[in-house]
Amino acid sequence: MIRRTFQAAMSLGRHRVLPGAPYVLPKLNPTSAFGSSTDSLVSRLCQRKTDKKDYALPNASWCPDMLNLYQEFLEKTKTEGWIKLPSFKSNRDHIQGLKLPFGLAVASDKSDSRIFTRCIQEEGQGYEYVIFFHPSEKKSICLFQPGPYLEGPPGFAHGGSLATMMDETFSKTAYLAGEGLLTLSLNIRFKNLIPVGSLAVLNVDVEKIEDQKLYISCITQSRDKQIVYAKCSGVFLQLQLEEESPQ
Amino acid sequence: MIRRTFQAAMSLGRHRVLPGAPYVLPKLNPTSAFGSSTDSLVSRLCQRKTDKKDYALPNASWCPDMLNLYQEFLEKTKTEGWIKLPSFKSNRDHIQGLKLPFGLAVASDKSDSRIFTRCIQEEGQGYEYVIFFHPSEKKSICLFQPGPYLEGPPGFAHGGSLATMMDETFSKTAYLAGEGLLTLSLNIRFKNLIPVGSLAVLNVDVEKIEDQKLYISCITQSRDKQIVYAKCSGVFLQLQLEEESPQ
Repeated sequence: MIRRTFQAAMSLGRHRVLPGAPYVLPKLNPTSAFGSSTDSLVSRLCQRKTDKKDYALPNASWCPDMLNLYQEFLEKTKTEGWIKLPSFKSNRDHIQGLKLPFGLAVASDKSDSRIFTRCIQEEGQGYEYVIFFHPSEKKSICLFQPGPYLEGPPGFAHGGSLATMMDETFSKTAYLAGEGLLTLSLNIRFKNLIPVGSLAVLNVDVEKIEDQKLYISCITQSRDKQIVYAKCSGVFLQLQLEEESPQ
Repeated sequence: MIRRTFQAAMSLGRHRVLPGAPYVLPKLNPTSAFGSSTDSLVSRLCQRKTDKKDYALPNASWCPDMLNLYQEFLEKTKTEGWIKLPSFKSNRDHIQGLKLPFGLAVASDKSDSRIFTRCIQEEGQGYEYVIFFHPSEKKSICLFQPGPYLEGPPGFAHGGSLATMMDETFSKTAYLAGEGLLTLSLNIRFKNLIPVGSLAVLNVDVEKIEDQKLYISCITQSRDKQIVYAKCSGVFLQLQLEEESPQ
């Protein structure tokens, strides 16, 4: 079995030389955050022409707050440069045609694999969320409505479900903003519990990109910003994906 | 809507006096960690006589490593004081007859609510786990096998699914070891990815109980301890639960 040590990856990234190694070495490009332009990253992740179901679309379970804010940001995609990210059943669909570095793409015979945040398919029961990304400002907004299958304390979302939502929003943001690919750390302070079925708004910012690491922060609040649910910071490792060779 | 501010709770806990307030004030007892004995907490959480399904039992999806280690710890429940915790569909089943403080028990018309870590009912597809707790040593072991619905990178568990598993093991441990009830913070460093379908072992220790807070740590490893998947520390707030008044 291949060892998948982030530390090894980081050390590789730092030295940027390892002749003959099977790893994909990041090609640092001083003119962009990393190797690829944000535009090409966005168009890759957000394939417009696909027959895959996009789960980040309104359904009957969305509360009025969630629907209203969704419409508001949808307007901003036309006028203020925001992009609505589609959300497919699996990350395999998002990174089609790309090879994960460090032997990460292990063979799997599971045909029905799902990204954790889309593990529950009944509308409104699990994760309802949509992420909007702003390329030039390197920030994201995630509208998150936890369902009754995400419970921790009776009537409220499990802390882990919010940690997951923050990690997932971070990871999409980190990738689009600068090829951040692996979560190195998460630091979460919980302030209030999120009632099941209500809207929580995640405001995510890329603070800096330095030494092949992205530093990201998030504040999760009620829509009116009167209740802070949690604050989180995270560090992601930059790793460039390689095109898969044709079969 | 009732504001559910942990900070308010902490401040209450610190002063321990607020005449006329609707909150349940913790009754500090210097002879035990908090108000109740570990024995009574364990017998409450782990009701032996119940018709509720215990999800923390072996099924056909468990890998050999998970089954073997489960049997090993089951033996230790007879000889070394370990306790196997049952795992019901909802935390409502675990805290039956107890009232959450600070107006946390909001009314909910959702009859089919589930604790997040039991959100997927198909065997082997989501969370497979079992927690063993050692009362006198105030530590826990969690055997965790992530299924293909918990994916992050293709073939590997989502970082959020591990964060959730750590938070859930922390929360049961914190409650049993000293009535720790609300997660105040989590600090996670990810080291390696967990392949879907394989076993990860969480070793959880209560480091100290001080000023109404429990400090807990966790190291998550492969069974042979050759691969460290993540390290985590967490802080929980102590809050004593009150018996519900008879209807």
